[in-house]
Amino acid sequence: MKRLKALKQLAFEKKDFDAFLVTNGANLLYFAGFPGTACILIPKKGKSTIYVYNVNYEQSKAEAKGFKVDLVKRGEDLATKISKKVKASKTKKIGLDAITGVPVVADYLKLRKALRGIAKIKIDNEPVRTLRKVKDEEELELMRKAGELTTEGMKAAYETIKPGVREYEVAAEIEYAMRKKGSWGTAFETIVASGVRSAFPHGGCTDRKIRKGDLVVVDIGATYQYYCSDMTRTIAAGKPSAKQKKIYEIVKLAQEKAYQAVKPKAKAKGIDAIARKLIKNAGYDKHYVHGLGHGVGLEVHEPPTLNPTSKDRLAVGNVVTIEPGIYIVDFGGIRIEDTVLVQKHKGEKLTKGPYTLETKP
Amino acid sequence: MKRLKALKQLAFEKKDFDAFLVTNGANLLYFAGFPGTACILIPKKGKSTIYVYNVNYEQSKAEAKGFKVDLVKRGEDLATKISKKVKASKTKKIGLDAITGVPVVADYLKLRKALRGIAKIKIDNEPVRTLRKVKDEEELELMRKAGELTTEGMKAAYETIKPGVREYEVAAEIEYAMRKKGSWGTAFETIVASGVRSAFPHGGCTDRKIRKGDLVVVDIGATYQYYCSDMTRTIAAGKPSAKQKKIYEIVKLAQEKAYQAVKPKAKAKGIDAIARKLIKNAGYDKHYVHGLGHGVGLEVHEPPTLNPTSKDRLAVGNVVTIEPGIYIVDFGGIRIEDTVLVQKHKGEKLTKGPYTLETKP
Repeated sequence: MKRLKALKQLAFEKKDFDAFLVTNGANLLYFAGFPGTACILIPKKGKSTIYVYNVNYEQSKAEAKGFKVDLVKRGEDLATKISKKVKASKTKKIGLDAITGVPVVADYLKLRKALRGIAKIKIDNEPVRTLRKVKDEEELELMRKAGELTTEGMKAAYETIKPGVREYEVAAEIEYAMRKKGSWGTAFETIVASGVRSAFPHGGCTDRKIRKGDLVVVDIGATYQYYCSDMTRTIAAGKPSAKQKKIYEIVKLAQEKAYQAVKPKAKAKGIDAIARKLIKNAGYDKHYVHGLGHGVGLEVHEPPTLNPTSKDRLAVGNVVTIEPGIYIVDFGGIRIEDTVLVQKHKGEKLTKGPYTLETKP
Repeated sequence: MKRLKALKQLAFEKKDFDAFLVTNGANLLYFAGFPGTACILIPKKGKSTIYVYNVNYEQSKAEAKGFKVDLVKRGEDLATKISKKVKASKTKKIGLDAITGVPVVADYLKLRKALRGIAKIKIDNEPVRTLRKVKDEEELELMRKAGELTTEGMKAAYETIKPGVREYEVAAEIEYAMRKKGSWGTAFETIVASGVRSAFPHGGCTDRKIRKGDLVVVDIGATYQYYCSDMTRTIAAGKPSAKQKKIYEIVKLAQEKAYQAVKPKAKAKGIDAIARKLIKNAGYDKHYVHGLGHGVGLEVHEPPTLNPTSKDRLAVGNVVTIEPGIYIVDFGGIRIEDTVLVQKHKGEKLTKGPYTLETKP
């Protein structure tokens, strides 16, 4: 309810919408607290309505505290249903969220059509984006837990990786360790990319047998009550070579220096620049093919963004990844990543774990 | 390439598009064979182009066989880039896929704007949908494997569920069993919903301790090389009650009878009706709150759909779930589900496992 109140302030006091429609899956979770709602219509005054299909109706009634629950029956059209309600309430200007993915084009066009002559609808992802960027205490508790679980998973990776083991066998041990400690699942498909595949930032996890001398990029994230975490370590199978060690130290320093720059009001692109410059000075800038990091929360990729073109500034309560990497085709890749909370004066790592290439630190 | 050829036939010979733009994640996987492409532009004549950001560029070059790979540089706008290419090639009518979720409204509107005065763009999900509904041999091999892995996971559920064990501990054993045998991950968040939560079809998986007398709905799916599977069994913790047994037998019969009706040309809504009628005759129709099933493939929910309003007819190569359920608030829920391939004369179950409430069959 606190979150709804904050949204109302952003959408109705700071902007002149007279209703706001939430349709994005993560946004729905953020406001309703449980999955399975089709959308939420938030009027300027009065109770908000959760629209829900039959399959999730009983769960909504049990778990949607403080909302009106409206059942969308089989054969009923959601867009028409919303437009009727909008018409009856004399709403004229509706804001619509669209942080990522949803609503789909077809749904949007349908809704716009249903509202023709009744109300104007405008996509505006700013209000919810603004809210979700700053995590409240309740969210941080869940994200800390997700970070701890992810750290447990990484321990399992260090214990499992050795020549002869398959990538997916490593993933099995990682995910089992996280689950056994209470993880709700994975924030994304676990990456255990070894050998030549480690040079691909999104190298996935296959049935490839890890070989002696391989670099293995392990990028994992536990979830806890819908909140995500994100962490990467790179591990050598067997004794690391001099070149592996050298590049590892560059990435490690870039990650550490960028992390140390995390504080409120810092420009996201400035923090990106710290790591980028270090890697450039070492001569590897061509091999650093992505941004420094991204926000994490209900989604594993959300605002703010840390890259050279970002316009974001950090603020207390932001949770972001710091993850520089160097990727060399036919040699391999090295990435080091932590999920970091922006505190009053500095960053706090939510994922913890050794910064070493070696499996027996 | 075989798939691209088939799409060209549907989009350029049966319809009068002169280019087709693929943007949906699963569709991109279907044509490109690896994740991380931003979109594919398929011209009527000549090579198709994969657009890719820097982070996935090297992987694309290594894995995108038969495509032109075009790098979208930092700061470059994809919509503008596409519109330039379209202009140069004198393309006038572009089809755009949109099976689920993607493209997002903002991207679509941007693209439409960039193409103004150059070409018309029309959302048409039919061509790719038509292709993806019918699985080829290569896809079926992966789906069979995903089904086997899911069956392994369900074995672990039967072995783990007993009073005192937490829901997420059951999920841990299930996912570990699937992973150890080679699963790439889960097709959706594993559901282990016990007691009152079993009455919610999407009851999730929490830290609730399973109690004696609980019904536990276990809904799981392994993935294998991006292909999904989907399977549900309901298991009683301890000796099942007479009422639990009675309702179980109704759901089991409904599932079996619907499965037996699976064959090419059968109306999807007709198969739904078989299970629905059986449940209605037993007096539980109010408690059967969802459709009978859905297609499975690269996505866990895709066409065709089996419900009372479906217009689909089954065809050889379709893969669908058959999953009736009865959900009674404060009593619990029972659902039984298999993933079924439509063969020449009948259905073939890709998920196998006991139809019993009891943990020691």
